[in-house]
This record gives sequence, C-alpha cells and structure tokens, in this order.
Amino acid sequence: MNADVVIIGCGPAGLQAGIHSSRKKADTVIVGKPGNSALQGAHVENYFGLAGKADGRGLLAKGLEQAVSFGCRHLDMNVTGAEAADGGFLVTVESGEAISCRSVVIATGISRAKLGIPGEEALLGKGVSYCAECDCGFYKGLRVAVIGDESEAAVSAELMTRYASEVHWVSRGVSADRALVDRATAAGASIVSGAPKEIRGGGKVESLLLEDGREVAVDGVFIVLGGRSSAYLAMDLGVTPEPDDSIRTDEGCETSVPGVFACGDVTGKPWQLAKAVGEGAVAGLGAAARAKGQI
Amino acid sequence: MNADVVIIGCGPAGLQAGIHSSRKKADTVIVGKPGNSALQGAHVENYFGLAGKADGRGLLAKGLEQAVSFGCRHLDMNVTGAEAADGGFLVTVESGEAISCRSVVIATGISRAKLGIPGEEALLGKGVSYCAECDCGFYKGLRVAVIGDESEAAVSAELMTRYASEVHWVSRGVSADRALVDRATAAGASIVSGAPKEIRGGGKVESLLLEDGREVAVDGVFIVLGGRSSAYLAMDLGVTPEPDDSIRTDEGCETSVPGVFACGDVTGKPWQLAKAVGEGAVAGLGAAARAKGQI
Repeated sequence: MNADVVIIGCGPAGLQAGIHSSRKKADTVIVGKPGNSALQGAHVENYFGLAGKADGRGLLAKGLEQAVSFGCRHLDMNVTGAEAADGGFLVTVESGEAISCRSVVIATGISRAKLGIPGEEALLGKGVSYCAECDCGFYKGLRVAVIGDESEAAVSAELMTRYASEVHWVSRGVSADRALVDRATAAGASIVSGAPKEIRGGGKVESLLLEDGREVAVDGVFIVLGGRSSAYLAMDLGVTPEPDDSIRTDEGCETSVPGVFACGDVTGKPWQLAKAVGEGAVAGLGAAARAKGQI
Repeated sequence: MNADVVIIGCGPAGLQAGIHSSRKKADTVIVGKPGNSALQGAHVENYFGLAGKADGRGLLAKGLEQAVSFGCRHLDMNVTGAEAADGGFLVTVESGEAISCRSVVIATGISRAKLGIPGEEALLGKGVSYCAECDCGFYKGLRVAVIGDESEAAVSAELMTRYASEVHWVSRGVSADRALVDRATAAGASIVSGAPKEIRGGGKVESLLLEDGREVAVDGVFIVLGGRSSAYLAMDLGVTPEPDDSIRTDEGCETSVPGVFACGDVTGKPWQLAKAVGEGAVAGLGAAARAKGQI
C-alpha cells in the first residue's frame, strides 16, 4: 500500500494530525486502535469549547469520524515495525502488510508507569488516575491518595489539597524537592510511609490497602510514577529518544530526521488533551507539506 | 488588583491558558474582548472532537464559561501597557487600573495583513478569509480568488484547486518559489495579473473587482498577505520579537524572559485553533507553576 503520510497512533494527537493532513489533501493513513489511547475511559472538562464533562470514548469516535470525512484511511491494527526506505519510509502492520510513505507521524502516546497491583486496571477511570492535572476537578470534597516519591507527586499532592477533603500522599520514601514537600504538607497533604498493595472497590475506588495491612479509605487514587513512550519506534526510524524516552521535535513537530514527525504525549509533558491536539495539527500540516515537497 | 497570572487576550489560546492556570489553582485574570479573536465570525470543522461545522462565536462563549467555572476572572477590556515591576509584572488596562502579577501570558493573536479595500471587512466570514488551510473545506465546488504574491499564496492556490471549481490567483507580480508556482498552475489555478480594488456582494461574496475594471465572479476571496502580531506588548515586557513580529518561546511556551509566556497565533504559524489551544494549555500550566515557584 502507498500513502503520502502514515500516522502511527489513533488517539487525539494522531487523529488531529490525520484531520489536518488529509484536509491538506495529502493521502493519509492512520494506523492504530482508538482503544489504546489514554483518552479511552477518561472524562474531560478542560478542553476549550467542550463545557461540562465530556466522555473520552465518544471524543475518540468523533475524531475518527472527522478524519475519515476528510478522506483519511484508518487501519484498526498495531504497527509492528518502521524503517527508512527509498528516500521515504516503510511502516509494517500486524497483518504483515507494509505501507510505503513520504512522511511518518509518531503519535503513540506513553504508557503510564504502573504499580502493577490488584485493582489498578479494573478501577482505571473509576477512581484510578495517572494525572492529577487532568482529573483534579472530579474530586471536589472527596478523599484521595497520591502515590509516588518524586517532585511530581509533591506537586500533585499539593494540587489535590485544593480540591479533595483529604489527601494521603503514599510514598516508600520521599525524594522530592524539599520546598515542594513542605508546601504540600503545609497545604494539608499527610504523608503516609508505606507501599501500596491493592486498590479496593466495587464499581469505584473505595480504599487503598498497604503492604503492612493498613487500609486507607479513599475515593480516588492518583498514581504518579512517570511514563514511558514508544521510543523503540523512533529508534527504528533513526530518531534518538531523550533520556526520559520522550521524542524531541522542533517547533514544526519534526524530529531530527526530516519527514519523521511526533506529537502528543510521546513528545513529553504536560500530558494534556489540548497539547496533544495542538501538536497533532502542527505535525499533520508539516507531514503533508513535507510529503508534497512544500517544505 | 493582584493576581498570580494575567493572561492578555481572550481568544482560544488565552481561554485555554485560563482554564489550565485556574484549574491549577493559580489566581488568574484574563484581560481582553472575545470579539477581537479571529475565531469570532469563523466556522470550524477541523478541531478534534467537534464534528460538523462549529460556530466560532459560540465556542468563544463556551470557553469563557469554562475558564470562569474554574475560578478565572475576566476583564472585558483592552490592555494599554505591561512592564516588569518588583520581581513580577504590572499590566495596565484601559480603565486605568493596574494588575500586579507573577506571570504574564501573551495570547493576543495576530492582525491579518489587510488589503484595505471596500467589501473586505463587511464580507469577512461571508466569503472573505485570511487562511486557506482553515477554510478550504467550505468551498467545495465553488469559485474562489486567492490574493497574494508570495509562496504562501502559491500553496494556498494549489490547496484550493483540490476543493474549488475555479481558482483565480490574483497577484500584482508573483514572487513565490518557482516550483510552487508551477505546481499551483499545473493543478489548475489560473494566474490573474492585477490589483484588487473591491470585493462585491450582498450577504456574501459575489465578485472581485480589479483596478483595471475587470470583475471576476467568485464565491470566496482568500487574502494571503501574512500577518502582524502584537509585538509591542512583548517588547514592553523585555521580549524581543522575531523579524516577522512573532514571539519565540521554548517548548514550555515561555519566552526569553522568565515568567512571560506566549501562545496561539502570536507565536507564529500555523494559525490554527488546535495549535492555539495546545499552546494555551502548556502556557497556562507553566505560568501557574512559575507563579507558585514550582519551576
């Protein structure tokens, strides 16, 4: 199969890239499963133009519909490989088929570092979150645990004190910046030394069980351990990831390899829908222009 | 008046910055009139999550409502000055009041370079557009004129051949890259040498009158002359604009002056709603973190 632009990833960054690339009349294929996006299962209240609490699954379906309406093709499967070839690129998908193209957009998001404890996966979006900045607004007057040792956990704990009625910052050993720790505790976060063992609850989070047997009654658990990107894909395409596995781009969302673009969570924090969409637009326009020899 | 963060500009970039800054519990004031945004009067079909043709005015109203719901204040007036003061900043508004703050976000957009001919203002959003990438999709099967001399006009003319039934590229003298000119004409754009005198039409564009008396029947007129930003504001705050008047930022949307952020069209092309919103989120989070000493 041939295309001008192949977009790897079917979350908001990839879909917005597909909208802009295909609207610019580049022949565009999006490869990926919408269900793999962090937006699936999430609710959104901080995205310009959507008042209220929007459903992530519905947004993804609408975004795919938009991209397809502009002529974008969609392959609902995973990518198995990518490489430079013949002055362009070759992207291989799980069916074995290879797509030859002029530009590639990496929009694969990140895998949030997981605790790997019981309840974490089952209660995702039902009280379990990996991003306080994303979901803080949904915990007004409720009790939460923030799990993590580093500065990001301190900032998340302090932020949650502004919303939640109780903030239990659970850490095996705090290594965050001292000033940020002081600020979180002064704001009312209480540090709980311990290791999480299980997140409990029926249809939603009810408590956090620790290794030593203590059980903390909470309505939400924020797991703040950092994230890892699909850096191997970048390397296959000749792009060297940053030490934290994110992919560096210029202001046109192009990587160090001309014709390879990246957008969304994979380029680093903040992991926000709005940022993903903004970079998706820039990457999509750039990939189309590069494929057509306009830049 | 005091605040943590003052956002100058009330378009999508400024409003998204306000949403993120106030949701992070920074005391945030947005100063500006929504009516000054380029989104006012526009229609949008290429923004993730909003299928169909969304009304710009309605989106701005919804965005302001969102920001206010998170505690953001809004001053519906213009800014008259801004300066560094006491380790922070002082922003003066047209009532004469000065707001003291820790971070400033410049989200003032750009003023599209205008032709300054009759009909241009009256028919804005009724067939007159300053951005082919934004509005191409609304001209399927219709006749358009593209006005401009440089490469951006060539790319716009070629793009419009993919949508419109007729593309008249009106130029006083083409100075665009030769390959891009050839591609536009090969795609079907016809070059009309001449100077525009008047855009005619009742409720919508009907024709373009040239200085020499010729009248070209069209449904749309794309004016592609480049844009100018509110660079003076940046200079008042100690930031030197780029040669094209845009404001350069780092990947956190912070300018060369710590505490001064910029987002949206003011940072350069592409002038796209999605890009403005993405940068707004990053700038809002950064300005809040800077105001609270977290970065």
